[in-house]
Amino acid sequence: MTDLKYITAPVQGELSELANFTCSLTISAAECTTSYFRKPLEIITKMDKSPVTIADRECEKRMRDLIARKYPDHGILGEEHGSDGEMRDEIWVIDPIDGTKSFISGLPLYGTLIAYLNKQKVRIGAISMPALKEFWIAIEGEGCFLNGEKCSVSDCRDLNDAVLMTTSVEYFSEQDTARFSALRDKTRVRRYGGDCYIYAMVASGWADIAAETGLQNYDYMALIPIIEEAGGVITDWSGRRPGLNSGGTILAAATPELHQQALEILSR
Amino acid sequence: MTDLKYITAPVQGELSELANFTCSLTISAAECTTSYFRKPLEIITKMDKSPVTIADRECEKRMRDLIARKYPDHGILGEEHGSDGEMRDEIWVIDPIDGTKSFISGLPLYGTLIAYLNKQKVRIGAISMPALKEFWIAIEGEGCFLNGEKCSVSDCRDLNDAVLMTTSVEYFSEQDTARFSALRDKTRVRRYGGDCYIYAMVASGWADIAAETGLQNYDYMALIPIIEEAGGVITDWSGRRPGLNSGGTILAAATPELHQQALEILSR
Repeated sequence: MTDLKYITAPVQGELSELANFTCSLTISAAECTTSYFRKPLEIITKMDKSPVTIADRECEKRMRDLIARKYPDHGILGEEHGSDGEMRDEIWVIDPIDGTKSFISGLPLYGTLIAYLNKQKVRIGAISMPALKEFWIAIEGEGCFLNGEKCSVSDCRDLNDAVLMTTSVEYFSEQDTARFSALRDKTRVRRYGGDCYIYAMVASGWADIAAETGLQNYDYMALIPIIEEAGGVITDWSGRRPGLNSGGTILAAATPELHQQALEILSR
Repeated sequence: MTDLKYITAPVQGELSELANFTCSLTISAAECTTSYFRKPLEIITKMDKSPVTIADRECEKRMRDLIARKYPDHGILGEEHGSDGEMRDEIWVIDPIDGTKSFISGLPLYGTLIAYLNKQKVRIGAISMPALKEFWIAIEGEGCFLNGEKCSVSDCRDLNDAVLMTTSVEYFSEQDTARFSALRDKTRVRRYGGDCYIYAMVASGWADIAAETGLQNYDYMALIPIIEEAGGVITDWSGRRPGLNSGGTILAAATPELHQQALEILSR
């Protein structure tokens, strides 16, 4: 267990119990997912043909059991096992394996996402990269932390200087591809692949913009505090703050100036 | 230095001295590149507008100095400082930072590539991933090793079951994009991003096909023994075995059957 001590939430405020529980959930998920990573495993193809593994289902089940035991009156919303008490005041939105394509092709870029919401407001978000031993947690009003150290976005204010990341243009509609291409052509560097990790790169100041479409609640809820507590701006492609079921476009940027320049292009 | 002990070449044959020297080169490059990774650094834009860093130049210089000191009669071919004695019998083809976009956006997917050639034939190839602490070395007739353990390709023989990887379709010509799309549509899973790491995934049996275009000598020479010694097949998109200056298309596949199916599509 000693090598999981990088999973930590160094805060004392009113959210500290929930933040510590987020760490416990993360540790349980890390133990589960790494036990399947780079091992032969049966691949189950879902109705939508995206690859999903036995690991995904098993690890989500473990996380759900932990939540139900600790907080029986909280709701849970997950990718594999659906929603349970979604209308309750306090809910957890979880995804044990974000980046299943990375996971099944042996790339250590898959992550575990956890968000804690109180009355529709995300107050804690976590991105865990178990194969990389990197853990970001953002706690409302406290900041965003990478392996226990505060992190923050870059001060990039101009698209011409920006490093832009997205997971894959394969998921984009024709119209969104055109919008994204227009944005891409204005930036200094583009980098593809990464799923939730690309937002962690923005939150740590190593990349400047992340833009994607087609995301679900469990893909993006955790990202909201991660970006905001690191000092960045996160909205959908029309400039609205994302919420539960708010649609799947996401634009995260290091600074308001950069966000505005990107938004002008993506909202056309 | 203890945490660099994963960089090892567990062989005894005639190439063992050269293989051990490849490890020394790798260690020197790993110390150099990681000292710049995720640090603020000045970005130099080359004539071709690809991003390249001070780190790249500095680390290649260090590698060149090591080679010149140990093997003064060997030639060297690198990305940043060009070629030096390229017509000699024995040459080293090196790239300290393959995946500069990953490097400058903080992604740990950049790698160092080293190839040793004797009379135009690649006899040793190495892929080092310093930020991930993973090291693949392939030695002619000895096999391909990941962190000292033999590794091998998958037994995937059908495109419908295959995990396909490429770095980015952004680099493809219109014609190559059409060919790649035709291949992509036949496979089970596609994964973007990764540079040299995608070939390491194929060599370890975690992915099944890697296909790219626009590669230079220093991008692909090291990959040839990595794929072949792991039991796979590597050619260009016309089915020819790649050599120095043979053009920049690469197709690596786990099995001859899979390679043939992919080649039929890419060579159209």
